[in-house]
Amino acid sequence: MESTTSTLLEQGITPSDLLKHWQGHRGLTRRVIEAFPEEAFFNYSIGGMRPFAEMVMELLGIAGPGIKEIATGKIQELIEQVDHGNKKVKILELWDEATNEINTYWEQIKPEQFQQNIKIFGQYEGTVWSSIFYFIDNEIHHRGQGYVYLRALGIEPPYFYER
Amino acid sequence: MESTTSTLLEQGITPSDLLKHWQGHRGLTRRVIEAFPEEAFFNYSIGGMRPFAEMVMELLGIAGPGIKEIATGKIQELIEQVDHGNKKVKILELWDEATNEINTYWEQIKPEQFQQNIKIFGQYEGTVWSSIFYFIDNEIHHRGQGYVYLRALGIEPPYFYER
Repeated sequence: MESTTSTLLEQGITPSDLLKHWQGHRGLTRRVIEAFPEEAFFNYSIGGMRPFAEMVMELLGIAGPGIKEIATGKIQELIEQVDHGNKKVKILELWDEATNEINTYWEQIKPEQFQQNIKIFGQYEGTVWSSIFYFIDNEIHHRGQGYVYLRALGIEPPYFYER
Repeated sequence: MESTTSTLLEQGITPSDLLKHWQGHRGLTRRVIEAFPEEAFFNYSIGGMRPFAEMVMELLGIAGPGIKEIATGKIQELIEQVDHGNKKVKILELWDEATNEINTYWEQIKPEQFQQNIKIFGQYEGTVWSSIFYFIDNEIHHRGQGYVYLRALGIEPPYFYER
């Protein structure tokens, strides 16, 4: 058996598997954003929760900057607001920029970093992999809430299993 | 540098990391079930979606049997209904049984299996790890929907980040 790191990592979940997994989720979240009527995206809510646009801004604040911090070691500020002018197209543009930013910085993360400790955004302690899992899980969590908003608006959301 | 499989896997995400991660999520889902009033758990819905009890039965149908199939190689039937008699306590009992079943069968999965192909429940093609990720992601997705139901019912859900 070869014993290089990459060969053995390939028996489990490789960093590139995880990136592909996340970008698959992010593609689905993008289609959920697209499914919202513009007005509802920025204003509709249930039970005093945030409109979906607010949740998406949180996701945008986490994803690109989070991976940049992991790759570069430079603490990033968690910014959950952007100047969107109530335009979905602006949010989608930022979403696509984040997609590229994630891909770019992901390549700079070394396999041995995944188990290292990090205080992401200078605040949240965990390992690199647990931080990335948090980013993904948090996106799935809020997107699931977006599905309820869409259903309550009478709109069929995209299939969960299509990535 | 040591080059055994386990040493190198520990640089990434180990099977035991992934189990702990999932069981952390499952503990949170259990608290979400507990937070529901019994009647609403079985009957409340938004936008024509399923009551949370129906989603939880889906999760129960997947988790234990899915890991059993991965560990034993024996195809399991996907059963998304249980005889709960509209009692949350019955669902919680099944939830705890599934927790043990997952722990028991997880130990029997060999590290090298994670990258292998599988047709889970005889139907869904993927690798072992992508199937397990699907189980976890699907749980987060539906639990996020449960959060909206709770908020709409005027109930504060447990903190997402507490596992």
